[in-house]
Amino acid sequence: MKTSAQELKPTGHVINGVNVEDVIGLIDDIGRNIKYAKTQFRARNSWVNGGVNQSEVKGFYACCQEDNSRNKAFELRNDEPLFLAGEDKAPNPVEYVLHALAGCLTTTMVYHAAVQGIEIEAVESSYEGDLDLRGIFGLSEEVRKGYNKVRVKMRVKSKASAEELTTLAMFSPVYDIISKSLPVSFILETH
Amino acid sequence: MKTSAQELKPTGHVINGVNVEDVIGLIDDIGRNIKYAKTQFRARNSWVNGGVNQSEVKGFYACCQEDNSRNKAFELRNDEPLFLAGEDKAPNPVEYVLHALAGCLTTTMVYHAAVQGIEIEAVESSYEGDLDLRGIFGLSEEVRKGYNKVRVKMRVKSKASAEELTTLAMFSPVYDIISKSLPVSFILETH
Repeated sequence: MKTSAQELKPTGHVINGVNVEDVIGLIDDIGRNIKYAKTQFRARNSWVNGGVNQSEVKGFYACCQEDNSRNKAFELRNDEPLFLAGEDKAPNPVEYVLHALAGCLTTTMVYHAAVQGIEIEAVESSYEGDLDLRGIFGLSEEVRKGYNKVRVKMRVKSKASAEELTTLAMFSPVYDIISKSLPVSFILETH
Repeated sequence: MKTSAQELKPTGHVINGVNVEDVIGLIDDIGRNIKYAKTQFRARNSWVNGGVNQSEVKGFYACCQEDNSRNKAFELRNDEPLFLAGEDKAPNPVEYVLHALAGCLTTTMVYHAAVQGIEIEAVESSYEGDLDLRGIFGLSEEVRKGYNKVRVKMRVKSKASAEELTTLAMFSPVYDIISKSLPVSFILETH
């Protein structure tokens, strides 16, 4: 959508759709007072029936205070696919793990790039998670219950190098959580 | 919704909304042929702008074949809250991690209980994840990027004991992934 020159923010303030001054302002706050780094996210969940349950995501703690800026909760539903005796009306929990990883790698790379003045034009990525059902069903103690391996392929349109962008993506909190638990292969290509 | 006696499945086949025969059938298949245990879930993600990106969750591999039973993809969106320079139109990736954990603990417990003939009347749970933003912003190498700690409180209406239900919930794949990466406290109470 085109906008008039008057509506545009000053050059350099918004890169990759990220308001860089807002992010740098937060980093400065944390540098001045470590308490600004302490954040707590939350969810509440209610079982509906069978493999269906629903989460509400609303309040959180950030910037030294309870953040009540959300007027209503986000509602997220889990279900299971047909072969797992579900009704398949929503993704299942291990699919949500891949979505969380995807979002976190992408956003972390895009934000870090913005702060460094690196423009990104497009990001596409794909995720595969290998699960051995003997784990969840307790059929083998040698098989882990969670993913055995996750593979990530990311394709980024940018003038920055693949190595540079990989370094930025590796700041991702969800990547940290998953890659400290199981092998995650990460391949990033630029074009 | 009431239904006629003819429409009801035989007693004992559906417990906690789970078709127990379907689940036992899958477990039997895996027992006969280990290949039935090999499952792969997937996601694709496209960056939209700033902290917004969107995943598509559709195909997966299960029961020795590509599963194409889903007619259309589930679409899931990430955003970031206002204090993280987002537009807050969707949960953020680390909030999705808590939703995935919630769904997986609940479904795993409900399914295992069903197979064992344990009736569950209600499940409510809450999740807190502590994040130190110095990790994601690279302000300290001693601070991890992902959650430092996650706390789970689960309240279950059932005649089974809290100890028994806890044992069942611990088969959860997402609990396995997260608890092998960081400390997760899990408290389950019955009523």
